[in-house]
Amino acid sequence: MKRLDFYRSLAIPSERRILFMVLDGLGGLPHPATGLSELETAKTPTLDRLASAGEVGLTTPVLPGVTPGSGPAHIALFGYDPLEYQVGRGVLAALGVAADLRPGDVAARINFCSLDADGNVSDRRAGRIGDEIGAPLAARLDALPNPDGFEITVRHVKQYRACVVFRGDGLEGNIGDTDSQHTGVPPLAPLALDAGSARAATLAADFVERAAKELSDQSAANGVLLRGFDGYAPLPSMEDLYGIDAAAVAAYPMYLGVARLAGMEAHGVDDSPAALVEKVQELAAKDFVFLHYKATDSRGEDGDFDGKVAEIEKADAVLGRLAAEFDVVMVTGDHSTPSRMRAHSWHPVPLLIAGPDARAQAATGFGEQACARGGIGQIRADEVMPLVLAHAGRLRKFGA
Amino acid sequence: MKRLDFYRSLAIPSERRILFMVLDGLGGLPHPATGLSELETAKTPTLDRLASAGEVGLTTPVLPGVTPGSGPAHIALFGYDPLEYQVGRGVLAALGVAADLRPGDVAARINFCSLDADGNVSDRRAGRIGDEIGAPLAARLDALPNPDGFEITVRHVKQYRACVVFRGDGLEGNIGDTDSQHTGVPPLAPLALDAGSARAATLAADFVERAAKELSDQSAANGVLLRGFDGYAPLPSMEDLYGIDAAAVAAYPMYLGVARLAGMEAHGVDDSPAALVEKVQELAAKDFVFLHYKATDSRGEDGDFDGKVAEIEKADAVLGRLAAEFDVVMVTGDHSTPSRMRAHSWHPVPLLIAGPDARAQAATGFGEQACARGGIGQIRADEVMPLVLAHAGRLRKFGA
Repeated sequence: MKRLDFYRSLAIPSERRILFMVLDGLGGLPHPATGLSELETAKTPTLDRLASAGEVGLTTPVLPGVTPGSGPAHIALFGYDPLEYQVGRGVLAALGVAADLRPGDVAARINFCSLDADGNVSDRRAGRIGDEIGAPLAARLDALPNPDGFEITVRHVKQYRACVVFRGDGLEGNIGDTDSQHTGVPPLAPLALDAGSARAATLAADFVERAAKELSDQSAANGVLLRGFDGYAPLPSMEDLYGIDAAAVAAYPMYLGVARLAGMEAHGVDDSPAALVEKVQELAAKDFVFLHYKATDSRGEDGDFDGKVAEIEKADAVLGRLAAEFDVVMVTGDHSTPSRMRAHSWHPVPLLIAGPDARAQAATGFGEQACARGGIGQIRADEVMPLVLAHAGRLRKFGA
Repeated sequence: MKRLDFYRSLAIPSERRILFMVLDGLGGLPHPATGLSELETAKTPTLDRLASAGEVGLTTPVLPGVTPGSGPAHIALFGYDPLEYQVGRGVLAALGVAADLRPGDVAARINFCSLDADGNVSDRRAGRIGDEIGAPLAARLDALPNPDGFEITVRHVKQYRACVVFRGDGLEGNIGDTDSQHTGVPPLAPLALDAGSARAATLAADFVERAAKELSDQSAANGVLLRGFDGYAPLPSMEDLYGIDAAAVAAYPMYLGVARLAGMEAHGVDDSPAALVEKVQELAAKDFVFLHYKATDSRGEDGDFDGKVAEIEKADAVLGRLAAEFDVVMVTGDHSTPSRMRAHSWHPVPLLIAGPDARAQAATGFGEQACARGGIGQIRADEVMPLVLAHAGRLRKFGA
């Protein structure tokens, strides 16, 4: 029996509300001067209190040694095997902006780019144009007439980023990127990587050509690069699996996209702690709220140790205003982003689960070292969701 | 997607050099008088320093409760699933002495033995004859004429031990040992355990008969016992999987054999710390050096607690002379060999990984108890290799 089917067979209703809070890139590495990580350095009264009242441990996002992107890392945290459910960036981007996606659609990420007179890419991000230019250009591409029998939708994402959805019979998304990641060379043709994807690749090539014509009046954003092609196949939803009415609150489209993939009702908000708190408070009728906090990862990628410490403290304050409204509180990261490495990493991620049935340990705060000695031990990220369900009283006894 | 294929898909080059040091039978049990294991008793300044600067944990060689032989234990440490890649002792022995092995060959271990006038085994090791007798006898068996259509190669291993390789069409190696493990009875016939192995079993029976004739001028070593039959199927190499140029340094053929199985360039040296150090220093061009230290296991099997402590200290000194030449240093054992048990055991084995991206923990030395509280947690031995690759910067990010 497949693991998810097994858990589905155990699911029962419960009144206990779950806060599922992800501090992006939470895990870190020790500062050489102090031996303490960003999380261990931050003053986090709420996290420390919940860690002491609850259980702590470490999660491995995908497999030992594997550094995950945000997509597979969140898919795992939501309880799905990240190797079984691999979802392309195009699909996540389209879901992120709530593009209407149906099974069988093929989606890709768009970067507006600059092409020189010879057709070579001179800037892969079109001079980092802002929303005021990117949004209307995406609307113009969306308005291009559809080829016979197909429907092509373009949605703006942010700045120079957009996404495109191809709809029609016989489309599959195993197609290579047109972005070679280099400048001074022309974009690649969209290459079908299997026979079933030939039709979609032809459609994409035609779209790229028509987009460049439409954008020929632009100085910077006069071309498009496509990447992350994928066909859309929805995941079994949290509603289907566990009977949970789940909502997501996040400031960035990517995280709204991955939440929609799991069937959550996704709420985009401004990128501020106050906006996150307010939106979560509005969702009092939901069984489960996934709350995504982005800036911890951003400061880690900047290499800004102190900045990441400050963002962890802000996230702690957000949690302080919300924790009392939930019965079960889970806090972890999707992956580590040590500021020393300025990048995502494979290091295991601190995890805490607090609730009425927690085996309290009086953990010495919430940090990598305390979690390494924690009662949950080291688990795979896709084991977090069943533990949270158990704490919420949502899994019945197995067998007599 | 299979695990190794997944890791292969993430492999990227790196300049960071890896020292992969295995102290055979490293794990132990506490001395009743002190409560400290052999490793915890030994003075190990280099291991302690690397443990504090690095990460520690425990490895389970195969599965919980399973006591491994050296073959599966090393196969797991090199990153292969030891249940999927089961390799017979004959193949490991032949690889150990660098016999020319090709896919489809069938290999077996030979013990020279003593047979009495009735053809019963009177000594399973032929009075433990030395190399000066064993080597020329192996050469004589190697020089026997080949049967039509087949090629039989015999190579000396050590003392009374040799190996034989059968080559030809239609050979398979699912064949029972001829060594009954008893004296006073005749050797068993080599029994084909499936239909595909019938031809090789007949060939082996004929070889045993002709060997006894050839050895009839000997008083002690007048017969051969065969065991560990297996067909040779090479593992995907470290070069194929990860693009790593790997070398092995070991004093005993078995460990050179298992290193060759993983595609390493294997260097046999004298059984002395100085020889190990010198050879590793010669391999400065290699990405990865597997260094095998044998005597820790031997003293454990002798039941010699203090002797094992002394060997751990010698190994620490070897590491002290080499660690600075590598970016990433991994130290563990293939299994535990508690001197109290005088045998291999199933107990998890101390592990340390030091490198520029280690999550330093200020572990209190390198020992079983410190490792049980370590940040790596308890992992399977076949997860060590991906972690080491990650520390070396050899695995790219998975997904967007």
